[in-house]
Amino acid sequence: MTEQIAVSTIRVQLPDGSIREVPSGTTPLEIATSISPRLAAVVVVAKVKPMAGLDINQSEGGQDDAPDAGSEEAMYDAALSPSAERIIDLAMPLAEDVELWLLKEQDEESLKVLRHSTAHVMATAILELFPETKLGHGPATDAGFFYDVYRETPFTEDDLAAIEKRMGEVVARNDAFVKETEPREDALQEYAAEGEFMKVHFIERFTQAGEPVSLYRNGGFTDFCRGPHVPSTGRVKAFKVTSVAGAYWLGDEKNQQLQRIYGTAFFNAKDMDAHFKRLEEIKARDHRVLGKQLDLFSIQEVAGAGLIFWHPKGGLIRKAMEDWMREDCIKRGYEMVFTPHIMRRELWKISGHEENYGENMYPPMELDDAEYRLKPMNCPGHILIYKNSPKSYRDLPVRYAELGNVYRYERSGTMHGLLRVRGFTQDDAHIFCTPGQIEDEVTACIEFAESVLNTFGFHEFKVELSTWDPNDKKFIGSAEQWGVAVGSLRNALERKGIPYKTIPGEAAFYGPKIDIKLVDVLGRMWQLSTVQFDWNLPARFDLHYKGEDGELHQPVMVHRALFGSVERFFGVLIEHYAGAFPFWLAPVQVGLVPISEKHLEYARTVQQRLKDAGVRVELDERNEKMNAKIREFGVNKVPFILIMGDKESQSDEVSVRTRGKGDGGAMSTEAFVARCLELQKSHSAEL
Amino acid sequence: MTEQIAVSTIRVQLPDGSIREVPSGTTPLEIATSISPRLAAVVVVAKVKPMAGLDINQSEGGQDDAPDAGSEEAMYDAALSPSAERIIDLAMPLAEDVELWLLKEQDEESLKVLRHSTAHVMATAILELFPETKLGHGPATDAGFFYDVYRETPFTEDDLAAIEKRMGEVVARNDAFVKETEPREDALQEYAAEGEFMKVHFIERFTQAGEPVSLYRNGGFTDFCRGPHVPSTGRVKAFKVTSVAGAYWLGDEKNQQLQRIYGTAFFNAKDMDAHFKRLEEIKARDHRVLGKQLDLFSIQEVAGAGLIFWHPKGGLIRKAMEDWMREDCIKRGYEMVFTPHIMRRELWKISGHEENYGENMYPPMELDDAEYRLKPMNCPGHILIYKNSPKSYRDLPVRYAELGNVYRYERSGTMHGLLRVRGFTQDDAHIFCTPGQIEDEVTACIEFAESVLNTFGFHEFKVELSTWDPNDKKFIGSAEQWGVAVGSLRNALERKGIPYKTIPGEAAFYGPKIDIKLVDVLGRMWQLSTVQFDWNLPARFDLHYKGEDGELHQPVMVHRALFGSVERFFGVLIEHYAGAFPFWLAPVQVGLVPISEKHLEYARTVQQRLKDAGVRVELDERNEKMNAKIREFGVNKVPFILIMGDKESQSDEVSVRTRGKGDGGAMSTEAFVARCLELQKSHSAEL
Repeated sequence: MTEQIAVSTIRVQLPDGSIREVPSGTTPLEIATSISPRLAAVVVVAKVKPMAGLDINQSEGGQDDAPDAGSEEAMYDAALSPSAERIIDLAMPLAEDVELWLLKEQDEESLKVLRHSTAHVMATAILELFPETKLGHGPATDAGFFYDVYRETPFTEDDLAAIEKRMGEVVARNDAFVKETEPREDALQEYAAEGEFMKVHFIERFTQAGEPVSLYRNGGFTDFCRGPHVPSTGRVKAFKVTSVAGAYWLGDEKNQQLQRIYGTAFFNAKDMDAHFKRLEEIKARDHRVLGKQLDLFSIQEVAGAGLIFWHPKGGLIRKAMEDWMREDCIKRGYEMVFTPHIMRRELWKISGHEENYGENMYPPMELDDAEYRLKPMNCPGHILIYKNSPKSYRDLPVRYAELGNVYRYERSGTMHGLLRVRGFTQDDAHIFCTPGQIEDEVTACIEFAESVLNTFGFHEFKVELSTWDPNDKKFIGSAEQWGVAVGSLRNALERKGIPYKTIPGEAAFYGPKIDIKLVDVLGRMWQLSTVQFDWNLPARFDLHYKGEDGELHQPVMVHRALFGSVERFFGVLIEHYAGAFPFWLAPVQVGLVPISEKHLEYARTVQQRLKDAGVRVELDERNEKMNAKIREFGVNKVPFILIMGDKESQSDEVSVRTRGKGDGGAMSTEAFVARCLELQKSHSAEL
Repeated sequence: MTEQIAVSTIRVQLPDGSIREVPSGTTPLEIATSISPRLAAVVVVAKVKPMAGLDINQSEGGQDDAPDAGSEEAMYDAALSPSAERIIDLAMPLAEDVELWLLKEQDEESLKVLRHSTAHVMATAILELFPETKLGHGPATDAGFFYDVYRETPFTEDDLAAIEKRMGEVVARNDAFVKETEPREDALQEYAAEGEFMKVHFIERFTQAGEPVSLYRNGGFTDFCRGPHVPSTGRVKAFKVTSVAGAYWLGDEKNQQLQRIYGTAFFNAKDMDAHFKRLEEIKARDHRVLGKQLDLFSIQEVAGAGLIFWHPKGGLIRKAMEDWMREDCIKRGYEMVFTPHIMRRELWKISGHEENYGENMYPPMELDDAEYRLKPMNCPGHILIYKNSPKSYRDLPVRYAELGNVYRYERSGTMHGLLRVRGFTQDDAHIFCTPGQIEDEVTACIEFAESVLNTFGFHEFKVELSTWDPNDKKFIGSAEQWGVAVGSLRNALERKGIPYKTIPGEAAFYGPKIDIKLVDVLGRMWQLSTVQFDWNLPARFDLHYKGEDGELHQPVMVHRALFGSVERFFGVLIEHYAGAFPFWLAPVQVGLVPISEKHLEYARTVQQRLKDAGVRVELDERNEKMNAKIREFGVNKVPFILIMGDKESQSDEVSVRTRGKGDGGAMSTEAFVARCLELQKSHSAEL
């Protein structure tokens, strides 16, 4: 008697809300085909989510934290979605009730899968050409993918070209990506026999004894991989092998040196062209290159990594940033304070920095039986000023602001121009207030942040509200306290009508925060402004104010930085403007070019008039050709170049060349000075 | 036959240039008497200088360095003049050709001698009343004198009064101060027998075996002392025993604790009264007291000694100082740069700070195989910016300015408010120029310094030009180089018609300097501005510029700081103004006092108008009596207090109380705003 196989039915909910009942084991591709064969031809991959609270991830131990692409964990889990939603192969049989999305090329998640599949295509090509190569792992990245491989001989440019060519052949074969499973011991044995030490390591590290391991095959190539993949190699329409770099096995420089081969892939050539064009644009705006070219700043190896030297022209911009920020702080009711750069270790113990932030701090300096540490933050300094005299409810809110120089340890090799440094200047403020004042204060902080970003030329932001996770023990404070704090921040955002994303569990352990990310001219996001709620430090330092009831109460604190780091903000500014700063920030605002020596005297009178009006003007007195002078001011992205010859000196006029607009004809010197003053005042980015 | 004693003749030159020939052994008093008996009655002491290059000091081993009053060396040498000139008793026989000055009470040097003599008078009184007391030493100080004594029982206030009373008796006896000599062994034996362990120590330490020791006797009291003294105890006309404090024998806390009894003395009661009045004034102006009272700054023990926290009101003044300084630097052709607070140890080795200044620096911090040290000076940072790109003679002079935060180790217990700190902000600039440009640059620095000091309310200066000593090996550079450098500084001073004192041998080892000392309202001198020439660092860092000749040349450097230290300058400012800052520096410029609640609304409109005009205004809205509010603004030294009642609100006027002038009657609000703007602009200290 044959056993009767019970074919159960599962329910699949589509994005339009409709629910289909299909036999268990039906694949997403079958469902796509049942909807329309045309759809089946364009879907790339599927996204599923357990229906009605059933979390398919839970059985796999949770994927809440997306592994960092560089971490070992990422070596197996790459291309997996980090949420209860999960991306799966179109050929994966569905075994439970799910919500299903059939993803097409234009869906965000598809590209990452394509790139991971292209990494397999590249590995296929490498092994076909260089069979002695051993494979590591090959994840997708934000910009493409890479594969870490071990081979004694370095890959040459020619090798990379050959690999790219062979990949074209692998794509043309259009082999399906097929998921297979194999007993763990068999897989280990086979890989070991082939000398694939990295694959052996990954299987041992990421799979359990007794469980089958997951492999993906395309044609003759098989790789240990959790997937998912696009249906077949033919889906890779546009790709490029871009470079090769060194990487140590498991990131440890004592291990073998691997070769990391980078590439990128897209669903079509147009997207890939746009990608490379954008890379060119990003490169042209690189603040490190522009910083050198425009002589704005430097990093001096002899002085140390991650330490910024602001040159005169960068210094002028910084001064403009600082002056604006200090004046605006005062207008908005902040008080400017100044606190020392070193403080005794005891203080950092009280503040908790020693315990919770010690590894980011510079080591102690011992002096006269006391130890001092460079400040990584300004909060304790401001707290000591608050605490220096008794406060009453009438004094609150107290708002202390400082352009505070902080030093934080960043690992060697992680520094990046102005964007990741060891020493930087926070436009830091701390507001001490009653719980009832938080909402107004946070609202004012958001308004101030908007004003800062707008003033400096950024008009698009993304706002995130990070809250706690009541189940995570790291968060201090009661549900009621979190309720009040999160509520205040939320209300502030809603009062301002600002759209925001709530991110649970991402708050600091001592309170929720609002992050404002600006979007630059290339659409890149930069995390700069932060408004952070805190009830930890007021408790640690035993802060008080006398309430209307005559009793002592504990204030709450708001930490906020709007530039965030003056250095980092400057780096973003350079890239945003590609060094062509608005008039009010330009180190040299007007360049003067006399046509010949006989016009020098007139040029000097114009120079003096501009100087007297407070305009930053440079007169090129060198014995050079006029065009060379114009070119040099142009290279330095000077907003206005004034050319002065016979006609101009006779009529007290200047001929104006405007940056980005070219020759604008002559105007009276007086009118030009007025135009400068207007631009200086308006902070306009338009000339 | 008796031996014939040859009485030789010496030549004594008087200040009028006349020369007297007198027998060797003639005393200054005899010479005074020969001039006029009235003169003999008023001279106090004599000053002599070997005539025609003969240096009477050389035979005594040199006294070029004035011993610090606190050092052990000073314990014997106190009251000796630190130059080739020497102060001697009127009764001292002259034995060689000298220039002679007969000093009267009003001569500067006389007071110090009187005070040292008064210390002997006090010791006489102490031993008469408390014979068990053992004596240490009793030098004159700038403010009077002290005597260190050992006695197990502490001296009480009553004891001090008794001592002072007995001193009156000693003075009334008018015993002559008589110099005696005694064989060293005898003196040691006698002192040892009396248990005078400190005297024994001094004799052993400061006299040579076989030499007689010098003692001074007045009446029954004798003291081991080199002198000189006033002729007799009766010359002490006005004196006071002021206090007693602890001091360790030889400054070592492992030794016996001594009692240091302080007193002061003058030639007349009027001078003493003025002295104590001045002390009161100094006390009332103490920046530490005012800093607390006006809530300007604090030093927080938990954070460390010598580290300044600028509170909001001090911060406002600092901001005004910084803003003024930065704008003025830019106007005068300086470029503002910013350099890191820590730099690698290697850099401090190149600069020579590690070797020559290391003990004043904070200890190194080790990080990633490199060591970092906090900067004690900004020079190397500015040099790295200079060196970052090639320079031509056309670029010079290059003038980099920074408000640089430097940290220097000062010994525990030597810190003093804002005046002596461990962390401070230099308004530091470095000028890189050709040798031919030094004179113009130094002239400009002096003009700038004058402008700074005048702007902040100081109008009297003393200028010193410190030069090298060609015989001192510590000075680097050739005679020709020093000639050029000193000549440039001297020419700059003379071009400006500035009187100055030349101090040979006081230059830094690498170049001459100009120090500008300001004189405050109490006549105290403060060393703040410095202009320093340097050819050492350009050589150490191998700096160059391309000359007109196409060859590489080494620039010279000028270091200059005008505030010197922003912290110290602020301390001097507080004391100079006794906290009553000029309008433009006052943290709160205008205080508003509505007579009653119904005038609050009008007060708010005035507040807004002042705010809009940029005036720092505070409205006292508390439910307090009008007079209490006026008093509080008065205590806080607010320049203007505006009182607003029915009359004022109806006529849009304000009643103005001006600090230091009282009630000035009503004026239109508009006129008052205009007055504020005028004061803000003029920086006037007058209201």
